[in-house]
Amino acid sequence: MQQHTSTDEFRFRSIGVIHSPHTDPERTPIQPIYAEGVRGRVEVFTEYSDGLQDLEGFSHIYLFYVLDRASAPRLVLSPYLDRAERGVFSTRAPCRPNPLGFSLVRLLRCEGTMLHVQDLDVLNGTPLLDIKPFFRQLDSRQDARSGWFDDVDESTARALGRRKDRRRP
Amino acid sequence: MQQHTSTDEFRFRSIGVIHSPHTDPERTPIQPIYAEGVRGRVEVFTEYSDGLQDLEGFSHIYLFYVLDRASAPRLVLSPYLDRAERGVFSTRAPCRPNPLGFSLVRLLRCEGTMLHVQDLDVLNGTPLLDIKPFFRQLDSRQDARSGWFDDVDESTARALGRRKDRRRP
Repeated sequence: MQQHTSTDEFRFRSIGVIHSPHTDPERTPIQPIYAEGVRGRVEVFTEYSDGLQDLEGFSHIYLFYVLDRASAPRLVLSPYLDRAERGVFSTRAPCRPNPLGFSLVRLLRCEGTMLHVQDLDVLNGTPLLDIKPFFRQLDSRQDARSGWFDDVDESTARALGRRKDRRRP
Repeated sequence: MQQHTSTDEFRFRSIGVIHSPHTDPERTPIQPIYAEGVRGRVEVFTEYSDGLQDLEGFSHIYLFYVLDRASAPRLVLSPYLDRAERGVFSTRAPCRPNPLGFSLVRLLRCEGTMLHVQDLDVLNGTPLLDIKPFFRQLDSRQDARSGWFDDVDESTARALGRRKDRRRP
């Protein structure tokens, strides 16, 4: 059996870059559902073009990327939609031990290696690591219990989640 | 604006290790919903324990990990539940350009830095990179169109997805 310790390091290489209208982290929506209608492009480097076959059949895809402008990791923080301090693994905050981000976006169409997407909450120029299809049959859990987030008021969340205003409720 | 090219490399460090009953890739379920009832443990290294606060309020969490025993990347392949060749980004196959895996599992309970989980489709000893909470309100898309996977027969998928038998339909 392999042994892993906290000294193990893994290297990933960007397979593309995400182009979006978001250039200011303070004004970028914090989740795709708060970025409704925001369009952008996912540029996949041409060496990976064969891997994009059949992707256009999916209405939604997951993007995996590097949170390359995240601040230093913090283990406890006050998430954007909550006043209390929470452990980072119970939030989607970018200041994580590994700055790994993922977003579920709508795929509008593919033009060669350029994917046109919507509901994009990612900063312009973000390095892309992977794309996976969203399987409606496997990836939804309507009955899930969502901890502190279940107590966040939906309309407040939607207003704040767009991050046009940093004030808290 | 930052420029990214395919030579950009990013380093991640494991924050823990996943313990599961799955030791043989050929017999490991291919998705959490095909691993129903399979229990395992997610060991988070103690230096990250503060980050686990509030996690127990969630019934489901995403695990992000390194597919450390995946075979060499292939851009086109025949996915396990389909006969046709597909682009790797329209599948969840492990032989991806970046061997980055993620699974949505049920969180049973936390015991210090040991998380007891269910519906685990991950190989024993897999290096953990991140944990994110599943937000029912943000992460489900009941209306999504799921490409080739929409044509896979559900009962066949469930039987094959458990991978006790490698024969194809």
